[in-house]
Amino acid sequence: MSSFPSKLVEASVNELSRLPGIGKKTAMRLCLHLLKQDAVVAESLGNSILKMRKNIKYCTNCFNISDSDICEICANPKRDHSLICIVEDVRDVMAIENTAQFQGIYHILGGVISPIEGIGPNDLNIEFLIEKVKSKNIHEIIMALSTTIEGDTTNFYIYKLLKNFPVIISTIARGISVGDELEYADEVTLGRSIINRIPYESSLIK
Amino acid sequence: MSSFPSKLVEASVNELSRLPGIGKKTAMRLCLHLLKQDAVVAESLGNSILKMRKNIKYCTNCFNISDSDICEICANPKRDHSLICIVEDVRDVMAIENTAQFQGIYHILGGVISPIEGIGPNDLNIEFLIEKVKSKNIHEIIMALSTTIEGDTTNFYIYKLLKNFPVIISTIARGISVGDELEYADEVTLGRSIINRIPYESSLIK
Repeated sequence: MSSFPSKLVEASVNELSRLPGIGKKTAMRLCLHLLKQDAVVAESLGNSILKMRKNIKYCTNCFNISDSDICEICANPKRDHSLICIVEDVRDVMAIENTAQFQGIYHILGGVISPIEGIGPNDLNIEFLIEKVKSKNIHEIIMALSTTIEGDTTNFYIYKLLKNFPVIISTIARGISVGDELEYADEVTLGRSIINRIPYESSLIK
Repeated sequence: MSSFPSKLVEASVNELSRLPGIGKKTAMRLCLHLLKQDAVVAESLGNSILKMRKNIKYCTNCFNISDSDICEICANPKRDHSLICIVEDVRDVMAIENTAQFQGIYHILGGVISPIEGIGPNDLNIEFLIEKVKSKNIHEIIMALSTTIEGDTTNFYIYKLLKNFPVIISTIARGISVGDELEYADEVTLGRSIINRIPYESSLIK
């Protein structure tokens, strides 16, 4: 794509196409859409991005994105502060919150260990997690990272650091998704679901 | 998606997901990307959108997007101002400009007639085109709209308005794409390409 009819459009296309998954053609389509709409649409979009980036805070306890220094979850006295769920990023927090099945608090790592992408343990919020387990009354740590090599590596790294502390370390259950048919399940998942079978009573939805 | 950890993020996700082809999950991914990058990335993006929407102009001659009242193409005295190519939007101008095969000027309709989307002839820049043909020395009009029902309808509508004026009305050639194999071409295109066959000498690339 060359010969932009306007430097203003060219600048916006270049900025938009720096976003993941958006190429120059998509960016151009988005710009033309914004130009066709009322001015207020583009203004709201531009301003909301500027405002978000300028005023965003991170919870000083769990590193969740927040509008204040302590996120709503960590500030909630009704939640169990001795139960910490370790997740990769804020989308995982939102996904777990939507299940309404978790009453503890979170700890956001900010990623997983990935040598290919150059992310080591020191790039993640691991040190502060260890401090928390040392200094606070933590009863259980639930590892809820992706089942990828990177996620498993990170799980194991944290497990090694924590295993000598008096804290239960668990991981979320891996198994056949609710509604899935057995014959289409991959053998690793099916195998794990047999090894880690649970009492039938526990499978009943309360 | 509910339970956003931050109203600021929620606002940006809502604005981004108003763009065509971007849903809430993609919008969230884009926001997290912007938050991970240096602040300058989000600032450039937000400001470029605001600046574009505020300062954009449309060429008063051809309705192309422009940084000034007359676009670069219309302002170029070396182009043939008696040869007008009619296109739907600015992306078509860019596509044709990239071929470097057209030396005339453009007229941007701003869409095509589409009863389903509620776009009638009065919503397009057709009236001013007729004025141009009436008042200026226009030699040829090239119709370069999409080969859709809407494009063909628009072509025919404009043809009817212009056919009594002393101007050549042509359309871009429809045929088998360069590099395509005949057996995979649809029969309408193949049929048209036989009816509208050209002298062999004309097919040689100059």
